[in-house]
This record gives sequence, C-alpha cells and structure tokens, in this order.
Amino acid sequence: MAQQRPPMIYYSAAGSGVAEVKVILSGFVLHGYLGMKTLTFKTLGLILSVSSGLSLGKEGPYVHIATCIGNVACRMFSKYSHNDGKRREVLSASAASGVAVAFGAPIGGVLFSLEEVSYYFPPKTLFRTFFCCIVAALSLKFLDPYGTNKIVLFEVRYMTDWKFFEMIAFILLGILGGATGALFIKASRVWAQTFRRLTLVKNWPILEVMLVALTTGLVSFWNRYTRLPVTELLFELASPCDTFTHTGYGLCPTEGRIPNVVGYLCIAFVIKAILTVITFGIKVPAGIYVPSMVVGGLLGRIVGHMVQYMALKYAGSGIFSNCPADGNPEACVVPGVYALVAAGATMCGVTRLSVTLAVILFELTGSLDHVLPFSIAVLVSKWTADALEPLSIYDLLTDMNSYPFLDNKVRPVFTTELGDITQRPRPERVIDISNSPLVHAKELRQKLEYLQMAGELDGGLPIIRESVLVGLIPAPDLEFALDKLGSEDSSLCLMSMHTRWNGLEDETSDAVDLTDFTPYIDPAPVALAVHSPMDLVYECFVKLGLRYICVLRDGQYAGMVHKKAFVKYVKHLVGQAA
Amino acid sequence: MAQQRPPMIYYSAAGSGVAEVKVILSGFVLHGYLGMKTLTFKTLGLILSVSSGLSLGKEGPYVHIATCIGNVACRMFSKYSHNDGKRREVLSASAASGVAVAFGAPIGGVLFSLEEVSYYFPPKTLFRTFFCCIVAALSLKFLDPYGTNKIVLFEVRYMTDWKFFEMIAFILLGILGGATGALFIKASRVWAQTFRRLTLVKNWPILEVMLVALTTGLVSFWNRYTRLPVTELLFELASPCDTFTHTGYGLCPTEGRIPNVVGYLCIAFVIKAILTVITFGIKVPAGIYVPSMVVGGLLGRIVGHMVQYMALKYAGSGIFSNCPADGNPEACVVPGVYALVAAGATMCGVTRLSVTLAVILFELTGSLDHVLPFSIAVLVSKWTADALEPLSIYDLLTDMNSYPFLDNKVRPVFTTELGDITQRPRPERVIDISNSPLVHAKELRQKLEYLQMAGELDGGLPIIRESVLVGLIPAPDLEFALDKLGSEDSSLCLMSMHTRWNGLEDETSDAVDLTDFTPYIDPAPVALAVHSPMDLVYECFVKLGLRYICVLRDGQYAGMVHKKAFVKYVKHLVGQAA
Repeated sequence: MAQQRPPMIYYSAAGSGVAEVKVILSGFVLHGYLGMKTLTFKTLGLILSVSSGLSLGKEGPYVHIATCIGNVACRMFSKYSHNDGKRREVLSASAASGVAVAFGAPIGGVLFSLEEVSYYFPPKTLFRTFFCCIVAALSLKFLDPYGTNKIVLFEVRYMTDWKFFEMIAFILLGILGGATGALFIKASRVWAQTFRRLTLVKNWPILEVMLVALTTGLVSFWNRYTRLPVTELLFELASPCDTFTHTGYGLCPTEGRIPNVVGYLCIAFVIKAILTVITFGIKVPAGIYVPSMVVGGLLGRIVGHMVQYMALKYAGSGIFSNCPADGNPEACVVPGVYALVAAGATMCGVTRLSVTLAVILFELTGSLDHVLPFSIAVLVSKWTADALEPLSIYDLLTDMNSYPFLDNKVRPVFTTELGDITQRPRPERVIDISNSPLVHAKELRQKLEYLQMAGELDGGLPIIRESVLVGLIPAPDLEFALDKLGSEDSSLCLMSMHTRWNGLEDETSDAVDLTDFTPYIDPAPVALAVHSPMDLVYECFVKLGLRYICVLRDGQYAGMVHKKAFVKYVKHLVGQAA
Repeated sequence: MAQQRPPMIYYSAAGSGVAEVKVILSGFVLHGYLGMKTLTFKTLGLILSVSSGLSLGKEGPYVHIATCIGNVACRMFSKYSHNDGKRREVLSASAASGVAVAFGAPIGGVLFSLEEVSYYFPPKTLFRTFFCCIVAALSLKFLDPYGTNKIVLFEVRYMTDWKFFEMIAFILLGILGGATGALFIKASRVWAQTFRRLTLVKNWPILEVMLVALTTGLVSFWNRYTRLPVTELLFELASPCDTFTHTGYGLCPTEGRIPNVVGYLCIAFVIKAILTVITFGIKVPAGIYVPSMVVGGLLGRIVGHMVQYMALKYAGSGIFSNCPADGNPEACVVPGVYALVAAGATMCGVTRLSVTLAVILFELTGSLDHVLPFSIAVLVSKWTADALEPLSIYDLLTDMNSYPFLDNKVRPVFTTELGDITQRPRPERVIDISNSPLVHAKELRQKLEYLQMAGELDGGLPIIRESVLVGLIPAPDLEFALDKLGSEDSSLCLMSMHTRWNGLEDETSDAVDLTDFTPYIDPAPVALAVHSPMDLVYECFVKLGLRYICVLRDGQYAGMVHKKAFVKYVKHLVGQAA
C-alpha cells in the first residue's frame, strides 16, 4: 500500500491527527502513527505549514505531537510500554497537554481529553491529566514564547455586561454557527469524494497543496482580513474597541459606516469559508480548530455589527430602551462578543465538543459575565449541527479511513442477544485438546494463518476440552511462541496446565521437542452466555476494552465474537436507524 | 431502628448529604433519602441552620436538595422511574446543578458531578449535565437573588499578576492547606468517636446542636472575623484592597500594623477551626465546603500578610528586587490571592476534589493569571492530604455509616484470582432443576429467606441443571413472584423455559397450581471463570455496575460472589496495605 504512494509524502504526519489519536486510545493499533519519525516530520512540517499563511491551525497537530511525545516517553519505562492501559492513560494526558499548550487553557485541555479523545476516564486519570496540563502551562509561562508573560493564545477582556435582549442574538448565533459547522462537514465530504478522487490529485498530493497555496495567495491578498494569519484575525474579530480607536474605519466603525464594514466582512467570510473547505484534508500538518473559529468569528462579527446598527438607530425604544443613542457605539452591543460566541458555536458544529469549548472560551476571556452566552450558543449549536449532520469532523475522518472505532457516544437501541451475531465454532478456529494436551506446532501455525487471513491479527484461539472452554491463547502471543521454536515440524506444544493426562509420557518420543506454551495461555477468557442481551455485550466492549468475547451455551463453548464484527454490526444498526 | 431515635429528628435531612448521594449514584438504595419529605425538611432546616450563624455552609446541602428534586421529578416519567441507569443520569445532572447554583459556577458544577458523585460518566451524560447546569445558572441570572445581577456567590478581581518568587509561597500554602484538611478529617473522626458517643449526646442530638450554638455565640462574638457569616468572611479575606481603603486598619494594614493584623487573624483561625470541627456532624442541614474554605482563607491571609511584610521590609533586594518599598502595599503581594489559594487547598484537603476546585476558584475570580497558582496549590494539597490521611471527608462518612461503597478511585493491587473469594455452592443457595423444571413454592420461599438472613436482599438465586448454570432469579423478583401466588403450599413453579421435560404432564396433578416463573428469570447472568484475575472482577463490579457475579469452573457452576463480599475483601486489602 505505502509503496504505491509517492515517496515524498509521509502520510502519518498529514492532517490534524486528532481522529487517529482517538482511534488509538479506543484500543486499536495504527502502526508507527505515534513514533519518533512521525513526531519529527510533523513538527518540521507544521512549522512550514503554519508559516505559509494557509487557512489552517496548529492546535490539532499539537495534540498529535504531544501524544507522540507521550508515546515515545512510554517506551523508556517498562511499566508503561508493557501495560496497554497505563500507556493509554499517559497518551490521554499528553493529548490534553497539547490543547492546554495550544490555547493556553489548561482546564480546557483536561476537558478536551475527557470529551474528545479518551474512551474511559476515571477520576484518577482526571487528576493525573490535570497535573500534566498544569505542568505544561507552567513550562509555557516560564518559556514565555509570546513575550507577553501570558500563557493564553490571545486574551480579550470585555468590560460591558450583556443585555437580556442579546440572548436572542446569541441563540441565533448558535444556530448559524452549528449550521455552518455542519455544512463545512458536508462540503468536506463532497470535496474529498469528487476533487480529491481525480487521478492527478490522488497521485500527486503535492500538486494539490501547491494549487491550494496558489489559490489562497491570489484570493486572500486583496482583503485585509483574509490576509491576516488565522490567530491574529480571530483576535482582532473578538476584540472590543477601546473608545479612542473609533476612527470609523476598520472593525470599530461609527454608525454610518457599519453597512460598509459589514459588506467587507461578508466578502471575507465567503473567501475564508471556501478556503477552509479546500485546505482541510491537504497533505500537510493542519488543524481545523482555529480556522473554523475564524469563519465563525467573521459570521459573528457581521451579526454583531448589524445588531449594533439597530441598537444605535432605534436607541432608547423597545428592547433597546437602555441603549444610549450617542457616545460609545459599544455601550450597548459589543460585536467582539458576538464574534467569539459564533466562533465557539462554529467550532462546536465542526467538532461537537461542548463543555471543552465553553471552558476554552472562558479561559481566553476570563469573563465571568460571558460564560452563559458562550455556553448557550454552544448548546444550541450542538443541537443544530447534530440535526443537520450526525457525524462530527472526526467521525467523518474515522469513517472515510474505515478505522474500527466503536463510538461510545451514540449507543443504538438493541433488541437482540449475543447469539444472534455469534458464528458457529469451526474446527480451524479452536484448539481442541480433548484427546491430548499436546498439539503439533504445524497445526497451530495453520490455525494462526487462518486467523490472520480473516484479518483478526489481534484475535485469539480458544482452547476447548470436550466442548468446555478451558483457556485462550491470543494470536500475537501464539505467533511469538511459534517464532521462538527451533523447528516447527517436530514440535509438540503443551496447551493445558491444569490437568495431567495419563498417556503423556508415552506420546512424547525422543524425536520431538516438548514445548510448554502454557505461560501464553489466558486461563480465564471473558465468556458470556449466548442469551446475554446485546447491551451487556456493548458495555463489555466499551467499558472493559475487550477485543473479543467467547460465547457459551449451557456452559459449553459456542463461538466467539470479535470486536471488529461487533463494530460492523453496530454501524449497520445505526445506519438502518438513520 | 428509626423508632428508637428521638421523634423530633429526621436523620435524612441532617448533614450535607453529599456522601449519601455518592453512595446512591454508585448503585445502592438508601430508602427515602431522596424523597419529598427529605426535600421539604432539608430546605426548611437549611434556612434555619444557615441563618443561625453557625460555622456551616449551604453548598453541600444544595447538592442533596437538587438531587431530591431530580429524583422526585423522575417519578413523574416512567422512562426514568423504571430505568435505573437513566434515573442515575438525571441525579448526576441534578447534583451538578446544585453546585452550579451554590457557587454560581456552572462549569465547576459539571466537574463536581464528574469528579465527586458520579460513578460512570460518558460524554453524553457530560453534555446533558452541562445543559442542566447552564439552565440552572440562567435561572439564577434571571431571579437575581443577590441583587447584583451576577450569578457568582461572590466575585473578586485581582489586577496584579503574581511574581515568580510567590510560587514558593503558593506551594507552601498547598502543603499547609492539605495538612489542615487532613487534620480536620482526623479531628472529626476523633470527635465522632468520643464526644458524640456519650450517652446524653447520642440520645439527645438537639442538646448537641444547642451546645454548639451556645459555644459558637459565646466564642465568636468578640472577634470581628469570626462574627461574620462564612460567605461574607471568605469574600473579605479573598478581596484585594483598593488603594483608598488603606486606612491601616482591618484587612488592609500599612506595614507597621501588619503584625497586629496577623495576630488578630491567628485568633480567628484557631476559633474558626475548632468551631468547624465541632459543628460538622451535628444533626442540622450543614455543609463543609465554605467553612473549610474560610479556615483555609484565614490561614492564607496570615501567610499572605507575612509575605507582604517581608516584601515591604526587604523591598528592592534579593527575590523582592522588583517590589517597590513605598506606595501601594499590594503592588507586589496581594494577601487576598493567598487567602483564596489556601481556601482552595484546604477544601481540597477535606474533599480531595482537584479539577473542580481549580475551576470553581477560576469562576469566582475570572482571573486568567491566577489559574496556575490555584491549580498548583490544589495539586500539592491533594498530595499532602493523601499522605497524611487516605480518606476524604466523604469516605469517612461512608465508612462510619458502613455504606457498601466500592471506591473507584483507589484500586488496590490485586495478586489473587476470583476463585480465592468464591464460596463453594451450597444447596440452599441454588435452585437445582436437574430432575425437574418445577420447584415447590415452599422450597423457593425457604431459599429466599435464607438469602435474606444472609443480608443479600439484592442478591439472586442461580438456577443450575446438572451443574451447569442455566439462569438466575434476582431475589426481589422472586419475592414479588412468590407474594403474588395465592397459596404457596400447593404451588409448583416453572423455572426453565428452554427445555421441555418428558414427565412434565405426569407430575402436575390437579391438586397443584402450575405457575410460570420464567419471565422473572435472567437467562444469561454474568459469569466469570474461576481463574479470572481479580482486576477483571473489580472492573466488572465498577464499570458494569453488577451486584453479583457467578463463578464457573470448567464450564460448571462453582459459586457466586456478591458485591458486598467483594467490597469487604477490597477494604480488607486496602486496610492491610495502609
């Protein structure tokens, strides 16, 4: 597969990587995705892609980079490298610290890890993740890369509290932001399935990058807002106007010039929205968080200025009765708040994060008064987006790449039981030791190859004696044990530790080696009765993190269900319901 | 039990109730604890206890009251009243909204629910809890009970950023706060085991309340700080001084008067600490959050003024090189920050909450700069407190009341397997249908009574046929089914649906009623092999929320482990390790 692709491209380093981190934390293995090579290439590539001025963010890749660091660090300690659960805990905390550093929002990082990437998050992991994020934020404070002595990406301070009539506008922004986010996902899908399928683009991803860069340059240069780097633009959009900057130009217009500014912002909105769609998915390290916030910020600023215009025009009457007609145009309506509210709503529409976004926005502003507007817009946005498009951007990527990911957010309504998806046991998929605890190595190799052909590299072979399940040997362990054998032709492998057979001595002649495979055997694989409700099966896969479940009927072995088969079944169910 | 207690006291309404809510959410039933009666009594009682001026808070009881409301509301909808999982989700969200309203911190509420009360918290519940907290905060904003148009309990704003040398002080405050919290727990235990065991106090809890109230009145009146209500005192302690209030008196002293103020605060600290210990646990609705924060706040303010004194005395030299000698005494060190940092650290020592506290402190101040000091103090405090006293205040209450709660935070290191704690199957604890699927109702009643004597009201009776587990009937269902029978003497109950026996017709003469019990039977109880590692058993109890696990040996029924027995085993293990 990799050989057919152009040699200059290292696919693991492209994109944001958040979807893949999520899949890895759910228990699947994407080989090399969190390795040293990815770390190096992604870090170098990110410097180039961010400084190019394309409509992309560095926040998502930060998560991937931080997770790589966590993974590489794990390899140094056997406690973590040998224990998958422990390692995942470290990876969760690393991903959190990525967000903490990207936004300068340590608590937002903790919630990101909880809400987006982690599969199971007990309070102990919460505390450790929190610790990791605080240490990350402290390092940032000491290193002071922005030179402001602040850790936040940017900081805006609103001194004016919001008025009750603005609640309508905030709800509207939630709807618009959610819809924009959902449409972005739909547009991304269409773009990936049409333009990116063209033979030329498919074979030459670098060509696509160059085309996008060229388009961005040509289109963006003529509008002040599209020319700015994304983070700076978002900061400008979200900022309130100090009274002295009310020159009537730029983002702080006087009443008469508002229509003009709105027109200018509308053009920027259209350009930025299109650029973000065509940029997302090109093969450079690129995140979607801040670009989606910028698109939302433009939208919010447009709405904000329109509300501001009305408040100035109809000042003192109706719902604007408390707004002064003269003086500071921001006395009543601060368009910067609208920009940040819509930025959060749009990012929610794209990622479907909720509490995390409310916290990050809060950490960017420190405005106690505005926690409620942010939160309400995020809530409304999530409902709107979920109604228009059930998949978040990460679900879309997971789906397009066919990663075997069992979503723990949407749980289908099950009416079936385990027996309905259990395959009957076939002799090539079990190790039967009814006659003898000794099995020929050749036979084991055959069974292993059969399993590998079925794509169940991470599966296992149950060991049964007179139809009773007495153990299970995981496929990777069996492979390891067989590979260690000198000669497979003449080896007999001991597959049971509990019972001694009578004829054991007779059977082992001098010509064969007797090898003990019992250390590799799991003596108590998780087994459920055939009538177990599917809800229990779901919980076992999601909460216990199992890869396969053995099935028993009246105490006897009756088959096995692999997680992949279960994921397929759940996807089918959800697909039917949608 | 209730009859032996004095009639005037309704025990469910006393205390904070957070420990009990936690136990209920872990899956156990405390009858009537979340009912209408508790709701009414606790609300009325809380008004009286808070206005009494005792050293107690309203925040914990808010959690209990909110959970009662959630529970009463659940009863109106069959979707929630009949589904225990759904109901617990509502209760989680209610508890969160209690904290959200108490502190005016909606995000803090979400984290409280996650970190303290909920047993299992998937992202879907997170979003719903968030929604509930935002609605609660919005109601608060509209109702505006404080008349400030703000939702927060109190709001402090620090305009001065912290200096690096202060980090040492913040770490020290974390240690002191954690130690204070741990000592508070130890003192509470001693007080409960000595004074509260006195016959007079035990039989007349009202006497204790009166004694505590009398002591509080006599001791508190003479010191300005101890006389203030707890919330107001905390607000004063945490507030920065505006320049014009530097009269040299009160909490904003000039350099020369600092030792004086520190002395006055020390007296207040000692009084308040002792009052809080003797107040906690009296039989009135009373929380510990704000009182513990006040004790910590006094401690922090003492340290803060001492650091301030040094900074003023040695201004311009050494670590104080950036501090001006004259002018505003708070130019370098703001003692209010120290007070809030120590308040958080002490509350952490008492409750062992971490992220929640950092968020609540952040929501009270909105100070981006101070997120790091708060968080670091909380982290250090948690370590210190855990080292001095492994139990949080809720664990202490849970232990003292012997609630069967399986702590999902501290997981012991298991080296054993399931077989080590499995009791051999005894004939009176199983229903054997090897000979016939029909069992006499009298026999079933005997088995049920045996189970009830063993204290396993929520247990179950496994159904076995020729040593193979074919089903299980939960004790409450069996009781319900037996109670519905007209006459137990002559009834035969059908206990298996899957196989038809040959002699079925012969056996059922006209004299007996044949009753079908199969609808009550769980055809697939969760069963694990006898060699399953104890870690898996732990995960099944904690994550799957099981009440009992059947045990199989080579496919045959080999016993049963009830959650209570497992909790006892885990407590024993943890006790040995400590």
